Amino acid sequence: MSTKESLEQQIKEQGDLVRKLKAAKETKERIAEEVAKLLDLKKQVQNEESPGDQNHTAVNQKFTLKTPKGTRDYSPEQMALRMSVLSKIIAVFKKHGAETIDTPVFELKEVLTGKYGEDSKLIYDLKDQGGEILSLRYDLTVPFARYLAMNKITNIKRYHIAKVYRRDNPSMSRGRYREFYQCDFDIAGAYDPMIPDAECIKIVSEILDSLQATPYVIKVNHRLLLDGMFEACGVPKTSFRNICSAVDKLDKLSWEEVRKEMVEEKGLSEDIADKIGEYVKLNGKSELTDKLLIDERLSKNKSAIAGLEAIKLLLKYCDLFDISSNVSFDLSLARGLDYYTGIIYEAVLLGEGEEVSVGSVAGGGRYDNLVAMFDVKNKQVPCVGVSIGVERLFAVLEQKLQAANRKVRTTEVDVYVCTAQKNLVEERLKLCNELWQDDFKVEFSYKKNPKLLAQLQYCEDNSIPFAIILGESEIKSGVVKLRNVITREEFEVKRGSLSDELRRKLGELNLNGTVPA
Amino acid sequence: MSTKESLEQQIKEQGDLVRKLKAAKETKERIAEEVAKLLDLKKQVQNEESPGDQNHTAVNQKFTLKTPKGTRDYSPEQMALRMSVLSKIIAVFKKHGAETIDTPVFELKEVLTGKYGEDSKLIYDLKDQGGEILSLRYDLTVPFARYLAMNKITNIKRYHIAKVYRRDNPSMSRGRYREFYQCDFDIAGAYDPMIPDAECIKIVSEILDSLQATPYVIKVNHRLLLDGMFEACGVPKTSFRNICSAVDKLDKLSWEEVRKEMVEEKGLSEDIADKIGEYVKLNGKSELTDKLLIDERLSKNKSAIAGLEAIKLLLKYCDLFDISSNVSFDLSLARGLDYYTGIIYEAVLLGEGEEVSVGSVAGGGRYDNLVAMFDVKNKQVPCVGVSIGVERLFAVLEQKLQAANRKVRTTEVDVYVCTAQKNLVEERLKLCNELWQDDFKVEFSYKKNPKLLAQLQYCEDNSIPFAIILGESEIKSGVVKLRNVITREEFEVKRGSLSDELRRKLGELNLNGTVPA
Repeated sequence: MSTKESLEQQIKEQGDLVRKLKAAKETKERIAEEVAKLLDLKKQVQNEESPGDQNHTAVNQKFTLKTPKGTRDYSPEQMALRMSVLSKIIAVFKKHGAETIDTPVFELKEVLTGKYGEDSKLIYDLKDQGGEILSLRYDLTVPFARYLAMNKITNIKRYHIAKVYRRDNPSMSRGRYREFYQCDFDIAGAYDPMIPDAECIKIVSEILDSLQATPYVIKVNHRLLLDGMFEACGVPKTSFRNICSAVDKLDKLSWEEVRKEMVEEKGLSEDIADKIGEYVKLNGKSELTDKLLIDERLSKNKSAIAGLEAIKLLLKYCDLFDISSNVSFDLSLARGLDYYTGIIYEAVLLGEGEEVSVGSVAGGGRYDNLVAMFDVKNKQVPCVGVSIGVERLFAVLEQKLQAANRKVRTTEVDVYVCTAQKNLVEERLKLCNELWQDDFKVEFSYKKNPKLLAQLQYCEDNSIPFAIILGESEIKSGVVKLRNVITREEFEVKRGSLSDELRRKLGELNLNGTVPA
Repeated sequence: MSTKESLEQQIKEQGDLVRKLKAAKETKERIAEEVAKLLDLKKQVQNEESPGDQNHTAVNQKFTLKTPKGTRDYSPEQMALRMSVLSKIIAVFKKHGAETIDTPVFELKEVLTGKYGEDSKLIYDLKDQGGEILSLRYDLTVPFARYLAMNKITNIKRYHIAKVYRRDNPSMSRGRYREFYQCDFDIAGAYDPMIPDAECIKIVSEILDSLQATPYVIKVNHRLLLDGMFEACGVPKTSFRNICSAVDKLDKLSWEEVRKEMVEEKGLSEDIADKIGEYVKLNGKSELTDKLLIDERLSKNKSAIAGLEAIKLLLKYCDLFDISSNVSFDLSLARGLDYYTGIIYEAVLLGEGEEVSVGSVAGGGRYDNLVAMFDVKNKQVPCVGVSIGVERLFAVLEQKLQAANRKVRTTEVDVYVCTAQKNLVEERLKLCNELWQDDFKVEFSYKKNPKLLAQLQYCEDNSIPFAIILGESEIKSGVVKLRNVITREEFEVKRGSLSDELRRKLGELNLNGTVPA
């Protein structure tokens, strides 16, 4: 079948679909979507019919200009903030000796299957264009586990910063985009209990401190304690997951609402729900582990005891790392993902002054069985890691900047080379070249004969600290005018000592901190 | 229809397809692909049948572990090299005052339609999961133009480093992956002729110099000269594109082969082909523009003259930027993409010592009409830009490192905290914490009681310059042993002055350049 024939068949099928939808009185939005596809197919046939004329077709082919639903562009201002935040985060990862890796944006679909529970329906699939069945990555943890199993790596400490994709309904979860950055740090390897786990929490704390994203609390809990608690309260084993995902909603819903879900939707007896209710309201420090270790119900449950002992050890290491004041053992922390097996944690930003939660800005835990899922011999590679919620951090810091009315500089230009008269473009290019050679960051006007005022205005608009002004008389006497853009002071400097003088003046600005950052 | 019913129908259809392919004696590879899809569907039905058992299913569900065809993972060693190359490139962009932006990895399919000529068939489409029709980006230039038109931006100088996607057949173009980095710098705005164009070439030259990717030549040509030359030789206007894309192959094919394609495949008369042959073998500096400006045929063609005047001006500016020795006016340079309208250029690495081309490492040109394609009123935003072929540069530099037998360090750890006896894990954590607080990059063993030899071996394996050794006697007397890992010298240092001493010693290493980079 030729491309054209194939397209015509697709048009026929698409036309049938549209007619069916209209007959079935589907929503306007749904019908409009399918009509758009039909029109697109028709356009493609036109292009097939007159391929030499594609350019012309494109010129007249106007459509709503937008990014795909749930995605957005990032402006230079947004990128400047993002890059500065990411570089601070990377600096912390590097302080702890992390390497970085990268994996493809898509994976074989079967790699992702069965890892995300109910959320699997949010995975983006690629079209079957003849070849493998592929999906966009949903997180960075599953590709990491696939990477370890595939390369038989048993020890690594790596970070990975990249975008992931989820077909969330943006109206459902406000502010979350379908394309967003994840920023993960993980330690793989068989080590002694809670040592790498504690370092992950230390890293979260250093990152939030370095971004001044304070005050915050890092909540910790343990999968074994959750399981033991459910068992001790009498939850049937087959309901552990369902009940756990109900508990996970306690950061958004009240206990009454969660209890209702457990009893009415998930069929738990009221009596058992109330027992769970007693536990999930508890939070504290190591004295709480001691109290629960002698709790009537939990003290009889092996799983609960193992979980409590682990948390106790973790809290001791947190104490040595000097982060105890920000760590809270919290029995309501459940975290939904299927692959956690041990410690789980989540960092929450607190509203300034009040104890109102602004939301989760980091989360993670131990997942000792995920890599084995990919290994032919089920070989286990224990892992623990954390994902920094950079998108929420970007948003929080953007708001702070706006509130402080501070502008982010999007370039780092040191000096702008201006001319005061006409016909000096060649002199400008020559001087720029000299300054680039001496490693300065330099801009100049792309107009042949720009107006001096326009050039100086550009410097002010872009917070460029210095301007060099070149006129015929300066060229004759081998000097330039060096102008401080903020103070508007001007100095005459010899061409031969320009670079030294400029370097000195830039150094002064940096020392005084008056360079607009 | 339930998910299960839908899957069962898909299985039936897929089974039919496989039988058909077998009957039609299709290639083994093709049949295997469709069988794999069939098996995948069957697995999904199993999961639907026992959803509570997914975890278990996944454990037993083994399959070939691989990245999708044409993609790969990047190891810490590869990433360390890539990050170091990219940071040098970004430094050059910043020296020229560039900002950065980002756009989504996918676009509405119609944004990409009609921009890539014959190559459009290589675009990756996303599956229609109910919603918009999307494709993965094919380059960064078209999304940039869409961004400008959508936000009505008429002036910007931006770089963008991100991955793009092409369903190339890897066997056809060896070494090129389907997912690869592009690294673009573009200047948008209505300015005076050739000033921004010359700065793009300057930037290419600075980047190749800073990566020591030498020797190289940057070839330049002009779309108007190519059109004028074709016209003057008698090529019918409707064949310009076809003939141009034949000329574009001169970097890989001989003139005889290209001539054959023109005459036999594209129906050009032998006489006209020979005239073109005379021109495309020419290359030189500004004296060649002068010569061609009085050429019998070209001097009568307006388009050719405009192109030649433009190149002459460009070469003058290159002279002022001190890059003339690396720039060559080359009439065989054609570049296939549909959207170029003015100057075009391409940087080629030359084999060491010989004049053998290693291949293109950067390319670009002026595209004054692309943004208008997206604007309702066809408003023009003139643009010129360059794309750095970072993938080829990575490969070249990787080979150089291998040839020199040099190892890339994948972390930046300053010091490793060891203990010499058992039961000192808490002391180790405390000391690490002190050093992190003083901003050192520090690692330690995640084992409770690691062997000293194993700890020191780790330092040597990972090129960590210093180790601190902590024993009971040291703790009692408030000192530590500081060991230079390379020389194996050990010094006793007081805890109180450890940070200062360590800082001093690290400074010495950096000065002497003996830190393995």
